Amino acid sequence: MEKLYGNAVVGQSGGPTAAINATLSGVIRGALAGVEKGIIGKVYGMRNGIEGLCEERLVDLGKIFTSEQRFLDLEHTPAAALGSCRKKLPNPKDNPLAFEFIIDIFKKYDIRYFFYIGGNDSMDTVMKLSEYVESIDYDMRVIGVPKTIDNDLAGTDHTPGFGSAAKYIATSVKEIICDCAVYTTKAVTITEIMGRDAGWLTASAGLARLSGGQGPDYIYLPERDFDMDSFFSDIRTALKAHPNVVIAVSEGVKFANGQYVCENMPGKADAFGHKQLSGTGTSLAAAVRAEVGCKTRAVEFNTSQRCAAHIASKTDIKESVAIGKKAVEYAIKGVSGHVMVYIRSKTGYKITIDSVPAVDVANKVRHVPDEFITPSGNNVTEKCLEYLRPLIEGEVKYRHEAGLPVHFKI
Amino acid sequence: MEKLYGNAVVGQSGGPTAAINATLSGVIRGALAGVEKGIIGKVYGMRNGIEGLCEERLVDLGKIFTSEQRFLDLEHTPAAALGSCRKKLPNPKDNPLAFEFIIDIFKKYDIRYFFYIGGNDSMDTVMKLSEYVESIDYDMRVIGVPKTIDNDLAGTDHTPGFGSAAKYIATSVKEIICDCAVYTTKAVTITEIMGRDAGWLTASAGLARLSGGQGPDYIYLPERDFDMDSFFSDIRTALKAHPNVVIAVSEGVKFANGQYVCENMPGKADAFGHKQLSGTGTSLAAAVRAEVGCKTRAVEFNTSQRCAAHIASKTDIKESVAIGKKAVEYAIKGVSGHVMVYIRSKTGYKITIDSVPAVDVANKVRHVPDEFITPSGNNVTEKCLEYLRPLIEGEVKYRHEAGLPVHFKI
Repeated sequence: MEKLYGNAVVGQSGGPTAAINATLSGVIRGALAGVEKGIIGKVYGMRNGIEGLCEERLVDLGKIFTSEQRFLDLEHTPAAALGSCRKKLPNPKDNPLAFEFIIDIFKKYDIRYFFYIGGNDSMDTVMKLSEYVESIDYDMRVIGVPKTIDNDLAGTDHTPGFGSAAKYIATSVKEIICDCAVYTTKAVTITEIMGRDAGWLTASAGLARLSGGQGPDYIYLPERDFDMDSFFSDIRTALKAHPNVVIAVSEGVKFANGQYVCENMPGKADAFGHKQLSGTGTSLAAAVRAEVGCKTRAVEFNTSQRCAAHIASKTDIKESVAIGKKAVEYAIKGVSGHVMVYIRSKTGYKITIDSVPAVDVANKVRHVPDEFITPSGNNVTEKCLEYLRPLIEGEVKYRHEAGLPVHFKI
Repeated sequence: MEKLYGNAVVGQSGGPTAAINATLSGVIRGALAGVEKGIIGKVYGMRNGIEGLCEERLVDLGKIFTSEQRFLDLEHTPAAALGSCRKKLPNPKDNPLAFEFIIDIFKKYDIRYFFYIGGNDSMDTVMKLSEYVESIDYDMRVIGVPKTIDNDLAGTDHTPGFGSAAKYIATSVKEIICDCAVYTTKAVTITEIMGRDAGWLTASAGLARLSGGQGPDYIYLPERDFDMDSFFSDIRTALKAHPNVVIAVSEGVKFANGQYVCENMPGKADAFGHKQLSGTGTSLAAAVRAEVGCKTRAVEFNTSQRCAAHIASKTDIKESVAIGKKAVEYAIKGVSGHVMVYIRSKTGYKITIDSVPAVDVANKVRHVPDEFITPSGNNVTEKCLEYLRPLIEGEVKYRHEAGLPVHFKI
């Protein structure tokens, strides 16, 4: 037996994805293996992330995960089984009290491993917490495991959760292209896709091209200024070629002056000051109707983009479990203040998992690179599709009850 | 060999579904079996329904469906592979010219079997056409095969296409309930579901209750007057029980005065004079935000309801093929002017296929019956779920390419 080091706690934070529970499963699998070996005492789950930790809403996961089936059910359940939060920790120098409070809880439960599964803001929590525990010489390993459907985290080839969202979007766009093709009257369908700052999810609509040959006519990403005249010109060109035009547009496209295209629609800021967007598709559909005069329709994929676990990518789910497990291995080896990342092989598609310092990830945004966007700025390149394709490969198998997917509750 | 009677033509009409191509496959399978037996000469497909027929845009389906795989691919392709139209035939007494024109085309191609797969308006076409050919003694069998995601056709236990749409809706609602459950702040999510006059699809959101125990808090169907005060009271009651309230509402709900709830949103009439609805969810979300003061979100499932073939019901697809095949059998037996229907066994779930006169189906709407709606009018009964449950059972298997479903093009 190796030496007992202490207990572990795991939490989920930020917006849900179809794969964040797969990563949770990986962490629990890894940590319970550590319990078996005598290195870890108990494995706690914090309900609603750091928020629930502060309220000592902890659950003993070892008592719940007593069969392989429970892990499998969890891995195919969307959203965050432990619950989530949107709390961002203050700067430890400005407000050490919040950190002292958390450390008291760690001491009370003898917590020496802290795993936090989340997006950009959660990696900020990992960075601050690891710096703080180091500054006070509290012996603890703090590891972040990324998740975001947006794929916009720095330091990793892609993010857990992105592949499943991309598969849902590409599948739905492909089905909508079929749907639109049935009538002979001219019509423009605008699909609005999530992605506040980065166009990865919108780009994935282009994957429909690789299966059957027809993708959206145009794809507009927030990485390029949106210009109404060019847009109308694109639409007119497409309508000359065929009557059923399908567009993919990111919710976050902006004009050259920095204004969001949907800015005339109501919106408000979330807890982090991010502007909530909606209505880009609706606004553009109305503009096309007025300018071009044809029938238009706006389709907003909305919440299903982040929770459609029934069409999750098998690659994404497998990798998401693996990165959770690896996080525990790294913590046991003594790594702290790091975020786990995927590294892709130079040729083919092989992923290895490693870690990078949280400071290299937190509060950075990884945009779609220039080489992935056509020079005209209204579509994605073959190179982009090559990058995306392996991420959506494979179909998940899950249990059904009454014709519906079985979801696991903690 | 039986006696050669003539050629067959099949068309699709009205809004697409995930199962209308399965029915097309069934008709082609049945008709090509008739070709084998020497009863039928050629099997034509009309592109874009009656509209393409009038323009002689016919395709020889026998030349295309030369392998079992092509049938299988077609059965898992959403929308209408032959294309669709929204043309309604005039009354033969008012305008016999249109019918004379069609008969000339029938004679030119020696068409003696006419199969039309469509909804309510298409069954009107079947009725008028069969009456006309009978009135002029043109020897022909005209058969309608129903399809509609709305499940609102009279004379049948349910409609081909409904089960798949219901499975998509119930699955998505279940996933959204997971998604909503992750935060502790009070929030109301309103899912807006298709169904202009009948609430069948909205009712199917309740199926989530049968798998895991939690369905939407309330379900509002167009079969009941919508009352804002009762609605706000429902929301307040639900928010006392738990913070994450999820509502399912039909796009077609109306106030007691007959006005649509979304009437303040822009809308226009389609070719049949039906008012196009959208914005019920958005309107109600805004109303709840103003009245109750909590966070709200509207999710409109939109087009995917009728084309999400990736999550089609196996039961629906199997039955949809079978009803197409049976239509050909009935036509060969001499049935004309009829619409094919499903009849459910008194106990258990066993479907037999028969036909009823088109006049008993056309221009009628089958509503959700009183016994399927709770006395308070804001949810569905267990009896309703018992009726719905078998319709979404079973998962389809389909081919993939680049991680996406393979779709068949004619």
